[in-house]
Amino acid sequence: MILRKIFNPIAVVRYMRWELATSTFLSTAVYFLYHNQYLGKTSLPFSVAAILGSALAIFLAFRNNNSYNRWWEARTIWGSIINNSRIFARQIIANADSALSSGKVSAEQINDYKKEMVYRQIAFAHALRLHLRGQKSLGEMKHLLSKEEFEDAVQKQNIPNYLLFVQGKRIKDGMKIEILGAFDNISLEPTLAGFNNFQGTCERIKSTPLLRQYHFFTKLFLWVFIAILPFALMTDFSKMGTPALMMPVSILVSFVFGVMGKVGEVNEDPFENRITDIPMSAMSNTIERDLKEMLGETELPPKHSPQDGFLF
Amino acid sequence: MILRKIFNPIAVVRYMRWELATSTFLSTAVYFLYHNQYLGKTSLPFSVAAILGSALAIFLAFRNNNSYNRWWEARTIWGSIINNSRIFARQIIANADSALSSGKVSAEQINDYKKEMVYRQIAFAHALRLHLRGQKSLGEMKHLLSKEEFEDAVQKQNIPNYLLFVQGKRIKDGMKIEILGAFDNISLEPTLAGFNNFQGTCERIKSTPLLRQYHFFTKLFLWVFIAILPFALMTDFSKMGTPALMMPVSILVSFVFGVMGKVGEVNEDPFENRITDIPMSAMSNTIERDLKEMLGETELPPKHSPQDGFLF
Amino acid sequence: MILRKIFNPIAVVRYMRWELATSTFLSTAVYFLYHNQYLGKTSLPFSVAAILGSALAIFLAFRNNNSYNRWWEARTIWGSIINNSRIFARQIIANADSALSSGKVSAEQINDYKKEMVYRQIAFAHALRLHLRGQKSLGEMKHLLSKEEFEDAVQKQNIPNYLLFVQGKRIKDGMKIEILGAFDNISLEPTLAGFNNFQGTCERIKSTPLLRQYHFFTKLFLWVFIAILPFALMTDFSKMGTPALMMPVSILVSFVFGVMGKVGEVNEDPFENRITDIPMSAMSNTIERDLKEMLGETELPPKHSPQDGFLF
Amino acid sequence: MILRKIFNPIAVVRYMRWELATSTFLSTAVYFLYHNQYLGKTSLPFSVAAILGSALAIFLAFRNNNSYNRWWEARTIWGSIINNSRIFARQIIANADSALSSGKVSAEQINDYKKEMVYRQIAFAHALRLHLRGQKSLGEMKHLLSKEEFEDAVQKQNIPNYLLFVQGKRIKDGMKIEILGAFDNISLEPTLAGFNNFQGTCERIKSTPLLRQYHFFTKLFLWVFIAILPFALMTDFSKMGTPALMMPVSILVSFVFGVMGKVGEVNEDPFENRITDIPMSAMSNTIERDLKEMLGETELPPKHSPQDGFLF
Amino acid sequence: MILRKIFNPIAVVRYMRWELATSTFLSTAVYFLYHNQYLGKTSLPFSVAAILGSALAIFLAFRNNNSYNRWWEARTIWGSIINNSRIFARQIIANADSALSSGKVSAEQINDYKKEMVYRQIAFAHALRLHLRGQKSLGEMKHLLSKEEFEDAVQKQNIPNYLLFVQGKRIKDGMKIEILGAFDNISLEPTLAGFNNFQGTCERIKSTPLLRQYHFFTKLFLWVFIAILPFALMTDFSKMGTPALMMPVSILVSFVFGVMGKVGEVNEDPFENRITDIPMSAMSNTIERDLKEMLGETELPPKHSPQDGFLF
Repeated sequence: MILRKIFNPIAVVRYMRWELATSTFLSTAVYFLYHNQYLGKTSLPFSVAAILGSALAIFLAFRNNNSYNRWWEARTIWGSIINNSRIFARQIIANADSALSSGKVSAEQINDYKKEMVYRQIAFAHALRLHLRGQKSLGEMKHLLSKEEFEDAVQKQNIPNYLLFVQGKRIKDGMKIEILGAFDNISLEPTLAGFNNFQGTCERIKSTPLLRQYHFFTKLFLWVFIAILPFALMTDFSKMGTPALMMPVSILVSFVFGVMGKVGEVNEDPFENRITDIPMSAMSNTIERDLKEMLGETELPPKHSPQDGFLF
Repeated sequence: MILRKIFNPIAVVRYMRWELATSTFLSTAVYFLYHNQYLGKTSLPFSVAAILGSALAIFLAFRNNNSYNRWWEARTIWGSIINNSRIFARQIIANADSALSSGKVSAEQINDYKKEMVYRQIAFAHALRLHLRGQKSLGEMKHLLSKEEFEDAVQKQNIPNYLLFVQGKRIKDGMKIEILGAFDNISLEPTLAGFNNFQGTCERIKSTPLLRQYHFFTKLFLWVFIAILPFALMTDFSKMGTPALMMPVSILVSFVFGVMGKVGEVNEDPFENRITDIPMSAMSNTIERDLKEMLGETELPPKHSPQDGFLF
Repeated sequence: MILRKIFNPIAVVRYMRWELATSTFLSTAVYFLYHNQYLGKTSLPFSVAAILGSALAIFLAFRNNNSYNRWWEARTIWGSIINNSRIFARQIIANADSALSSGKVSAEQINDYKKEMVYRQIAFAHALRLHLRGQKSLGEMKHLLSKEEFEDAVQKQNIPNYLLFVQGKRIKDGMKIEILGAFDNISLEPTLAGFNNFQGTCERIKSTPLLRQYHFFTKLFLWVFIAILPFALMTDFSKMGTPALMMPVSILVSFVFGVMGKVGEVNEDPFENRITDIPMSAMSNTIERDLKEMLGETELPPKHSPQDGFLF
Repeated sequence: MILRKIFNPIAVVRYMRWELATSTFLSTAVYFLYHNQYLGKTSLPFSVAAILGSALAIFLAFRNNNSYNRWWEARTIWGSIINNSRIFARQIIANADSALSSGKVSAEQINDYKKEMVYRQIAFAHALRLHLRGQKSLGEMKHLLSKEEFEDAVQKQNIPNYLLFVQGKRIKDGMKIEILGAFDNISLEPTLAGFNNFQGTCERIKSTPLLRQYHFFTKLFLWVFIAILPFALMTDFSKMGTPALMMPVSILVSFVFGVMGKVGEVNEDPFENRITDIPMSAMSNTIERDLKEMLGETELPPKHSPQDGFLF
Repeated sequence: MILRKIFNPIAVVRYMRWELATSTFLSTAVYFLYHNQYLGKTSLPFSVAAILGSALAIFLAFRNNNSYNRWWEARTIWGSIINNSRIFARQIIANADSALSSGKVSAEQINDYKKEMVYRQIAFAHALRLHLRGQKSLGEMKHLLSKEEFEDAVQKQNIPNYLLFVQGKRIKDGMKIEILGAFDNISLEPTLAGFNNFQGTCERIKSTPLLRQYHFFTKLFLWVFIAILPFALMTDFSKMGTPALMMPVSILVSFVFGVMGKVGEVNEDPFENRITDIPMSAMSNTIERDLKEMLGETELPPKHSPQDGFLF
């Protein structure tokens, strides 16, 4: 996620290099053709640019809105994963602590159980992050699972789903040994089902790109627009006796529409390990810090901070 | 679902052949009429194309937005079917496994029950897919049901609904023989009701086309626009002394608006066994693979992959 | 609901007769005034039509979006009534069947209870349909209720609400005689409350028209636009030396904007027993067929089919 | 709420009197300045009106959409209050009636309890209506509460919240004397929490006006647009030789944009005891009639009807 | 939150000083260059401003809509915190009061428990407000917690989350000593989880700015538009022979677009302790007043009122 408010002009130019280069080349070419009077018969009325511009604007607005909605839905889901992790930890800890007075389980059993359950939930967040970004560095969650469980988990295709599956089984185990009460699952189960749904929603966004038809034709029409622009502007500028001004204006307008295209494009896919991703690393870190604090631990991993204005 | 990012230009031209052919014919005809001076009295001011163009744009934007919403809702629902299948399997397996220690049911009974319930849930996904696509190849779910149940099921009008009905009954049976606990249905019932709702939502999208009024008039106005365009462009181009250029521009603008129309149209109906469908085959396959893995099976059906950039 | 894809041109013309007649009359009149040089001083610049056209477009887009949302919400609610009816029948049947083994109720009692409850739920769908369409043919649900209950019900002001009220009471009765279990109401009550909410939502749409201000002024501005159009087009066409062409163009543009107005208007009220209604008769029929099949009945009422491309 | 479809033209003119008067004065003044050739140097190009018009249109569309959303959300919430009142009454009556067979409470106790609970719920609707409209005529709910409770209630700041608080306590009392069963609160509590949320949502809409920035600048830009319009139209009309026509056109366009402004403005605040309010009086009356009928009462208050096309 | 309907013109001018100053300087400079005939070759056709204006409008509409959605979501969430606080207090009080008759707990124990729980819930609202605004004046909630708990709480990183965690534990404690019933947590837990989710939603809005790409480029394009405007208007105004009028018009149009930019910008971040914040202080005060009244207290803190038309 980008946090900096001011962008480096050089980075912006580099980012838009193809659009700028194409537009510079074309408008210069058109100007020289015009200047040497080869263009008398090929300049276009401005109305052509206007009508193509509105069609392009509809496409761009559609694409940008839906890209942003995808990004924001992904961010919202991960926010819900944070909330739900806190709820789950709160429920497990309060329920388990409450079992002490019954005398059927020892304080140690309770502590082990709480730690196991809460750590596995932290591991879920890391596993989901790695799963969505297609990263293989599973070691990042090794410290949160027992050795056996970690070795089991890494064999699975869908590791986060497996961890939720284990949570479900271990809740039932907890009920059997009465660390958890008979009704506690009525509250725990919806929390757990929440994680299944959040994971599934992320997978939906990851596996279903924004409709390719819109992606392809938005791009195509953008390039057509950039290509036609110098011809369409030439007429008006030559009427005004300022034909050379057509070049900077054509480049500027191409830049503006090109930015509109790029800005929407980067939000289409929020889980690609890029600077425009939603900050899943920082959010898994928040979960790890918050849940460990709820367990009463004091050695928390350091907080992720933005670097150079980017948060991952 | 289309996954390829670049479309084959020949396929695009073939796809738009009627719009391109009509526009080519009309603009050529208008040009020759003009060239031979038959058209002096029939060219139109550009403002006519502009005003019709904006009315058309409102219709297209409305239609495309609502088509996309239908497609995305269908995709979201099927995503939820995946999530809910995992939740259901997790609940059944965790609850049933937990019954072993009670001594009232044997490990074999539990395994049979888990397998029966989870397989039937996989069968639901296949049945719903076939139901929505209007396909009759019911054999694709035969391996998931007992012979008797399969023969019963194929007699029913609404097979997926029947399978959910059986699930509801078998949960009650499970509670009677204490494979499931007395409170387990409080969690299982909402999961099951979820499937009823997801099926009904798919049926709603399938049986209720996007309002025909919008469909018909969007098409009509698009063709009227394509027909009027050469007349409206002729004026400006002849003023500029470049009448022949009117032809490619007219074809280009018709192509752009024609694409806007087509791109929206294909998303109206997401369950028609076309390349623009939501990928229900791949998603049923995901369900089968994930749920069988949760049962501990190792012989999973091979994963569906996109072919030629299309995923079904 | 309209299912046909192609509309009869004569029906379309008849449907738009006032808009077409007015526009034909006005544009012809303007043309003859112009032709006889009475109009020199009353033609308007095109910019007036453009600015009024954009204001009108904003109104039309707003009205059409919100009309469609009303229609689609109504359709969604009725889809949910179908889903919820299946859920309710599934719950009642599975719960009641499960009571047999307890020995406290006979198979006959169970069958009577299931049939009574499920039939009443079918009656609810018919009653709600008649209630929303303001129809008095209550006989259409007579076969689904006992004679006494039918006579009671028809006395009530709000018959569908009364039927839900009876369902609530009969569930409690079922629990008392142990056809239903002590926890079954935890699942049944939300299903029943669902019906209350769906009925209320339909009543909201029925009783609250789309804001009259938008309805009235959209119409008013549409007619003002149609009236001004010939004057505003005259100028451009006479400049081009093709004044007679103004007439067909003015009629065409009036037709396009008139269609935009009408298309939105018919979706404002989806429960009026018109061809643009949501198909409540077909949906009640689906509920009757599906629920009777779930009871194991084989004599189902025939399926409603579209007639002439319309489904009621 | 306005139910009439045709508005009185005199009322419309009176309603828009400031916009019409200003525009008439300004356009007449501009015309006479022009006529006497004082205006040669102050008329504006039409493009200025066009660019300001589009900025204004964006503001108006934003304001009108959000105003309408506020109005429709308020209407939806009150629809939900009706639904929820029916659900609450159904739950209380079915649960209490079911207690008779237990023998622990008498039929009279049950009837008193049902009546008390249902009447208080009716009182809640009246109290919320008065609370939102800032009306002090608390007598309108006096017949629904015992004398003591009424006197207690009117002391409270937030009367509807107090009534819900009493409902919560009396449910617990009902459980203690076993008029309500041990699990009944699992269904009743979400219904009751629903009322808390509906009240809170209404209070949110009431206490948070549509962002004042949009309110103020929309108004300001509307008046600027009306003021600039005659200058910008003058140019085109004088070119066409019909300068006097500028006056009616300027007034017409000002009227259209003025209506767009007013139409949105009246929906901003739906609880102000105006003709554009949501009809809370009629809806409280519906609740009173429906719930009393559910109690088996036959003396129902007369139904509220629209008067002169307005429903309060 | 701004409540005043009329803004001080001087404040508005000061607020827009950079836009106004830049535009005044540029348009004056362009006018004098033109006047002294240096500008013959640098004025631009108006179409350039039109095409950049529409691109800018798309960006502004997108930004303003999404800013407003963020603001309104924040306001809605805080409204839900009010509702949920009332629900929580109602549940705790009704449940605890009901325990008196059991004889297992004394009236004093009950009162202490109710007060502790409800006060902690009020403290949550204050703590969340301070947390979101980044304020350190934790003393504002000191009177609501015991001395020990306050000292514990202020050590924590995430104080509101800690308070919810304590609530969860204390509910379990209440169940153990039977101030709360065995099923009461089925209703209390969703209320508590609601607070976790509301907090998380606020944190999401706080920590995730509106996409910086849109922020940066909207600003950039706005300034480009303001800079180009005088050149683009010059042409039309000089044609009309009123070049000096270009200056006020250019400043006016820059002001209008500048306002559109600023108005959206201030709503991006609703938790920054500015006059455009959502009024969290007033809402925490409402919660404190309402909940204390529900406890039967009569010494309520004074109600927050708007000052100078602003509510914090």
